[in-house]
Amino acid sequence: MLDGMTADPDSGLLSPVRAGTPAEAVTGDRAFADALLDAEAALARAQARLGTVPSEAAERISAAARQLGEGELDVVQLARDARGTGNPVVSLVRTLSAKVPDVADYVHRGSTSQDIVDTAMMLVARNVLRLISADLTAIADALAAVARAHRDTVMPGRTLTAHAVPTTFGLKAAIWRQGVQESARRIAELRLPVSLGGAAGTLAAYVQYGDGTDDYADRLVAAFAEETGLAATILPWHADRTPVAELVAALAGVTTALGKIAVDVQVLARTEIGEVTEATGGGSSAMPHKQNPVQSALIRSAALQVPVLAAGVTQSGLAEDERSAGVWQAEWQLLRECLRLAGGATHTAVNLVQSLDVHADSMQENLTLTNGLIVSERLSAALAPIVGKARAKDLLGTASRRAVEENRPLAEILADTPEITAAIDAATLADLEDPAQYVGAAGRMVDRALEDPTA
Amino acid sequence: MLDGMTADPDSGLLSPVRAGTPAEAVTGDRAFADALLDAEAALARAQARLGTVPSEAAERISAAARQLGEGELDVVQLARDARGTGNPVVSLVRTLSAKVPDVADYVHRGSTSQDIVDTAMMLVARNVLRLISADLTAIADALAAVARAHRDTVMPGRTLTAHAVPTTFGLKAAIWRQGVQESARRIAELRLPVSLGGAAGTLAAYVQYGDGTDDYADRLVAAFAEETGLAATILPWHADRTPVAELVAALAGVTTALGKIAVDVQVLARTEIGEVTEATGGGSSAMPHKQNPVQSALIRSAALQVPVLAAGVTQSGLAEDERSAGVWQAEWQLLRECLRLAGGATHTAVNLVQSLDVHADSMQENLTLTNGLIVSERLSAALAPIVGKARAKDLLGTASRRAVEENRPLAEILADTPEITAAIDAATLADLEDPAQYVGAAGRMVDRALEDPTA
Amino acid sequence: MLDGMTADPDSGLLSPVRAGTPAEAVTGDRAFADALLDAEAALARAQARLGTVPSEAAERISAAARQLGEGELDVVQLARDARGTGNPVVSLVRTLSAKVPDVADYVHRGSTSQDIVDTAMMLVARNVLRLISADLTAIADALAAVARAHRDTVMPGRTLTAHAVPTTFGLKAAIWRQGVQESARRIAELRLPVSLGGAAGTLAAYVQYGDGTDDYADRLVAAFAEETGLAATILPWHADRTPVAELVAALAGVTTALGKIAVDVQVLARTEIGEVTEATGGGSSAMPHKQNPVQSALIRSAALQVPVLAAGVTQSGLAEDERSAGVWQAEWQLLRECLRLAGGATHTAVNLVQSLDVHADSMQENLTLTNGLIVSERLSAALAPIVGKARAKDLLGTASRRAVEENRPLAEILADTPEITAAIDAATLADLEDPAQYVGAAGRMVDRALEDPTA
Amino acid sequence: MLDGMTADPDSGLLSPVRAGTPAEAVTGDRAFADALLDAEAALARAQARLGTVPSEAAERISAAARQLGEGELDVVQLARDARGTGNPVVSLVRTLSAKVPDVADYVHRGSTSQDIVDTAMMLVARNVLRLISADLTAIADALAAVARAHRDTVMPGRTLTAHAVPTTFGLKAAIWRQGVQESARRIAELRLPVSLGGAAGTLAAYVQYGDGTDDYADRLVAAFAEETGLAATILPWHADRTPVAELVAALAGVTTALGKIAVDVQVLARTEIGEVTEATGGGSSAMPHKQNPVQSALIRSAALQVPVLAAGVTQSGLAEDERSAGVWQAEWQLLRECLRLAGGATHTAVNLVQSLDVHADSMQENLTLTNGLIVSERLSAALAPIVGKARAKDLLGTASRRAVEENRPLAEILADTPEITAAIDAATLADLEDPAQYVGAAGRMVDRALEDPTA
Repeated sequence: MLDGMTADPDSGLLSPVRAGTPAEAVTGDRAFADALLDAEAALARAQARLGTVPSEAAERISAAARQLGEGELDVVQLARDARGTGNPVVSLVRTLSAKVPDVADYVHRGSTSQDIVDTAMMLVARNVLRLISADLTAIADALAAVARAHRDTVMPGRTLTAHAVPTTFGLKAAIWRQGVQESARRIAELRLPVSLGGAAGTLAAYVQYGDGTDDYADRLVAAFAEETGLAATILPWHADRTPVAELVAALAGVTTALGKIAVDVQVLARTEIGEVTEATGGGSSAMPHKQNPVQSALIRSAALQVPVLAAGVTQSGLAEDERSAGVWQAEWQLLRECLRLAGGATHTAVNLVQSLDVHADSMQENLTLTNGLIVSERLSAALAPIVGKARAKDLLGTASRRAVEENRPLAEILADTPEITAAIDAATLADLEDPAQYVGAAGRMVDRALEDPTA
Repeated sequence: MLDGMTADPDSGLLSPVRAGTPAEAVTGDRAFADALLDAEAALARAQARLGTVPSEAAERISAAARQLGEGELDVVQLARDARGTGNPVVSLVRTLSAKVPDVADYVHRGSTSQDIVDTAMMLVARNVLRLISADLTAIADALAAVARAHRDTVMPGRTLTAHAVPTTFGLKAAIWRQGVQESARRIAELRLPVSLGGAAGTLAAYVQYGDGTDDYADRLVAAFAEETGLAATILPWHADRTPVAELVAALAGVTTALGKIAVDVQVLARTEIGEVTEATGGGSSAMPHKQNPVQSALIRSAALQVPVLAAGVTQSGLAEDERSAGVWQAEWQLLRECLRLAGGATHTAVNLVQSLDVHADSMQENLTLTNGLIVSERLSAALAPIVGKARAKDLLGTASRRAVEENRPLAEILADTPEITAAIDAATLADLEDPAQYVGAAGRMVDRALEDPTA
Repeated sequence: MLDGMTADPDSGLLSPVRAGTPAEAVTGDRAFADALLDAEAALARAQARLGTVPSEAAERISAAARQLGEGELDVVQLARDARGTGNPVVSLVRTLSAKVPDVADYVHRGSTSQDIVDTAMMLVARNVLRLISADLTAIADALAAVARAHRDTVMPGRTLTAHAVPTTFGLKAAIWRQGVQESARRIAELRLPVSLGGAAGTLAAYVQYGDGTDDYADRLVAAFAEETGLAATILPWHADRTPVAELVAALAGVTTALGKIAVDVQVLARTEIGEVTEATGGGSSAMPHKQNPVQSALIRSAALQVPVLAAGVTQSGLAEDERSAGVWQAEWQLLRECLRLAGGATHTAVNLVQSLDVHADSMQENLTLTNGLIVSERLSAALAPIVGKARAKDLLGTASRRAVEENRPLAEILADTPEITAAIDAATLADLEDPAQYVGAAGRMVDRALEDPTA
Repeated sequence: MLDGMTADPDSGLLSPVRAGTPAEAVTGDRAFADALLDAEAALARAQARLGTVPSEAAERISAAARQLGEGELDVVQLARDARGTGNPVVSLVRTLSAKVPDVADYVHRGSTSQDIVDTAMMLVARNVLRLISADLTAIADALAAVARAHRDTVMPGRTLTAHAVPTTFGLKAAIWRQGVQESARRIAELRLPVSLGGAAGTLAAYVQYGDGTDDYADRLVAAFAEETGLAATILPWHADRTPVAELVAALAGVTTALGKIAVDVQVLARTEIGEVTEATGGGSSAMPHKQNPVQSALIRSAALQVPVLAAGVTQSGLAEDERSAGVWQAEWQLLRECLRLAGGATHTAVNLVQSLDVHADSMQENLTLTNGLIVSERLSAALAPIVGKARAKDLLGTASRRAVEENRPLAEILADTPEITAAIDAATLADLEDPAQYVGAAGRMVDRALEDPTA
């Protein structure tokens, strides 16, 4: 009924965070079809290693898979064929077999669709994770440089949208970097397994086509793992979706770490704040003057999507039987979107952090906006040992209110308050009122974080 | 940096529920680009209606938009250009303007990217909703026929996976239909608005290019609505995402209504149950005998995804300012996926329900599986007025346990229980034990539901 | 094994948005237990109306239900008993029956747990929705007053975090109000039905205990609807969760509309922006001077949670059979959280919007921050008819860049540009450069929106 | 306005999976308030260790915290007070200080609300995780026993709801166990850190109250970690929510692993299938005979909820500034729900798996339901080397269809097919047709999985 309908594929028009990025290039339909073909070829070679498929047959199958992957395969048709069987492997096996008629018996030998699809998903994931890992390293390095350069650049610390106490841009960058490194660690810890279980997880047909030895199944899994470069397993994971759940959780970790940077950059880039700008701001279709923080926006758009997509993937672990009717299928596109949104976000973030313009002068200027209230906590703490904590808080509370109401510097009001001047001399007071002298352990923490070999 | 990278687009390989369906055809990148072009052309024509753009310019722009839409436009490049500006409209306007150099001043006149993107999204939504509505009608009609045909087909009602009391397949189908009709109602109630607000929602630039009349902005919105066939608005919705949230909620309603059918079909199609089969079952790559309920699986796969995708879209209503940096962008792909998963699911469900094979004989046979326990509730209710509710429940509880333990018909055990036989004569008992006589108001409810003009 | 374990209940310590609010008071365990009791009592009275339960029995059951609801019932124990049966009704019926031993036969007559739980859920929902509707009216009224008062208060329109073009606070408030009113409309359109289906949706046991008339089941549903004040249904919804899905979608609409206000208030309340402040800001445990926008924060916290909770509820529509094993149970707590987060958010928002301090002077001041760039779009539009759109955009682009680089007013730079001064005289230029004169249709739209009788 | 409103707290009435479980007992409001008090006390003791708070003051604060925790504290009021400040710590500090008026200066010294709330959350998490870990061990042990006992119990492997090929219940249990162990591993790998950052993450006030040494902040974090038993950090995580995201991802792993078991048990417990039953089935309010698989239903209800709740928590990582206005607050209740749903699910699952009744006879019987088709894959594989794979698939496909249409054993049909009988002798055919001989590597995989020291 769909005959003649022209395909109208997606190239990321509605997902600019990944449009044209390397992650997109390795997650498209063709990339996925290639991975399916790679899985079939690797299986034949693994069986050949064990002597249960002729080497020449495995080579012919591998060559045919390569040719199909290089453009012969009609991926649009493959996608549509999947409607009839619930997955694209039945059609793919038919096409691959037709390419090698005389060794067709050795194609997909003993196998089941899920082994091929799941293995292919892991191959695609591996390709994306390589890109992501490299990007995360670049991002962490760039952030380390920023943290080092701005170790002592004082700026307002902000909580619940208001100036709280001073902090440093170096500390902020170091905390961003911490998040990035934690996400890189989670990615690095992932173990991407081959999937080999056969029709219901027993490997029965593989064994049926095997050599009769007791450990044939074990050796087949190991050989398949070697051929694909993925990890071997003791039990199949066709009905235990932990690998997929861990993968998307790690990807959500990546986009969240980057999304945190993005939302912070967006605050700091606001017209009224101006503490950072994206070096390559985006133009507007309407306003000649606009330099929008587009990269942050794209990264944030990915960070908003991945956790909900990942929830869908995680829920797909609730799959009944040896293979679910529909739960498994629900996983695929959500997982792919997680992969390429994360890959697009890291690609975008490399450029963002490597070229971020930091305006220390604006930070310095913004520190003065509260008329000195930004150090009220410190003054309260300094007074507490002298007049008691409660009295100190009262005094500062009153003075703070006056500073706001009269729009006068807190320092001026304190200088007018005998109880204060009696307690603290003018020079000490001036020091206490200097935001740059109230950044606590910020510098030291930056140093330690940058030195941490485990981070 | 992306020069030379070949595009690897998606055609639904990982989303068979919509691969090659009509809904896919109207939601691809090209369809979306066409909608962007349609929005630009409609805007020029709307301005021409009001005399602020020359009619000929509007015609030339419309013609150019059509030509670009018919294949000239490089959609892959458009997608990539969106990375620089955060949306594809800046690049699109450049291309469209270049096609009509002498009337380029009238392209995108007074407009902003969001007006075009949001309007295009509604145009695409409208096209999908038309398909969905027609499919839902076909599904409801098919289910009405099923409900009518099986008004009195008795089957086990199942709760918490176990036989509870009898029901009819007609009632089941009528309840499925109710869900489908409710979802159709929600779709029908949607109001898809044009988006026209200008750079920050004031329509200032449109007014600037206007005719100086007081109600120019109102009339422009009305004209744009007429040109696009969408609804007019009093206030712009660029910062009030209700239309999008209602849209995805309604789409989740569609996939959930169909998903409910799918999970029920899957239960009833189980090898051990065999009460229904999909007429066009899917084959397996491994097992020659398999006829999988693939359509249900595909529908369920969509139903699992849409609610989480919809949650992401709904959350995008938390968008700061007159236009968010990233929250808006997060909406697009999620929304498109909702549209085409719903469209793919309805397309698939039409075939499923129109061709579902119902096996009344298996239903009849399964009714006997509990040795009569399936009517224990009725016997308890019949006894209650005679021996009291508590005693009745006790008697039936004991008899039920014996029926299970001794694997004997409940009827036999009851016939052996003097307290029962004293209370109820044998003929009455036989009637009470007949599942077909214990379907309550099922038939009547089916009749009423099928007659209901509001449903 | 749980004997002797002391209950440690929740009173909202981790959910301040609803702690101690009216919505919390009507959604706690006791409120829910009361609703269960109300449903049982209403059922008995409905049956009494139809003459199948003695009136006196129904009265005694209603009185007993009231007494249990007034404090006698051990709700903690009820909750724990639910573990054994999967829902609390079995235990509740036992307790209620024990209170009225001689009419115990008429308790829960013909009924099933789901009828009681689902009806109770709707009763609780109704109570919360009344609070929410009243609050939404108050919020919309307050916003109308704000919109009217600030119809002509000019402020920077912000997109992608940067100043775009001017807007008015009146328009902003009118758009907030639009979202609130849309959400109120969705709430008002909800139809909360009784649930009456019996063990598997056929009403068989009700009919068994009925009067033998053909339309007994219809009349029972109608009577139950009247006794509860909920809507009657033609078919039971035990296996069609549309009412619940529509409910949570509407609740997400409420929190999103309020959350949009909250995130905007948070931006405008920033230390650097200062265009609004919450009248009753929250204090800090550390900083004497802080006046945090706590109400916005609480509202936003609800708005972030409800869409994901609602997704979980919506997914519960994928429930197999006549009653699912677990999917139904997954719905309850998520739904309750949606109800009280929405109720807490509206309660909080009433105070927020009624007492919001608006600082027109800061808005005015912020309009100057871009050195005039905020009207660059207008200047470009004004020049376009004279020098062409492309040239106009170029001229303004260059002038804008100079304004930024040289930190000089755009007006000054334009006055230095012969091509500009040749095209536009000084007085006109001054008008064009006045943000207050570039708010498009803002005022008119506010007027129309406030007058709109359908809104 | 809330004066006099009686609290109506939750005790799990709508969440039976955790009602009255140990996990509930350690996650209620009082448990959380205790953890807040523990954090305050540990902070004072940590400062006392470093000599910046008098030891006696720390002891008095600790004692007062204990007394408040033992029942004095009005937790309902505490919850309501949090509305004014956005978190409960301001009120808690006031109450705690009032208990120790003469050492009140040392309460919450240098601290900020987030340090206390985040640390308390980790303390509560630790308590729940201990319960979960112990339960997971018990579950894995029970599953190991099941896998061992049923190593060779053959049953139908099911894919897409239909019988596929045989498997063993031992393999199924081993795969369940694999999921459980993977989830236990993820829990074990979690690192629960103290939170110590002060008002904006610099620890400035702590340092202000410190001893002036360079490494005071480091030593304070270490001392706080020792006093609480949590992990120390180099940088504060107030604005890097990785610990929370990893926590909920691991909890979703737990409920998913258990939920997979639950959905499988539900399939196998179906009336028509009867391969397992829950030893302690739940009764029904209506039907005397029902023994519902309630434990599976409760576990599944948790497994459906946690991933969406976890998505909400993960999204809370997108928190602007040094402390977000609302994003942080959105995290709390969702996180608590994840903790106690996971804890309730493990508690329930221990009993489920320890007492699951397995019916090998039903499995054996069900293996015959397809008239032998369940081994069609094997027959196809056995024939392939003789007649070619394509011909073999054809032959079996035809024979399978005949077996279905004629309702005859496949064996009988094959015995009638000359091409088959010519290829394979009768004895071999009989072996090939025996499901028990077609379980591949199932037994061996079970052995290896149970022996695996790393699993």
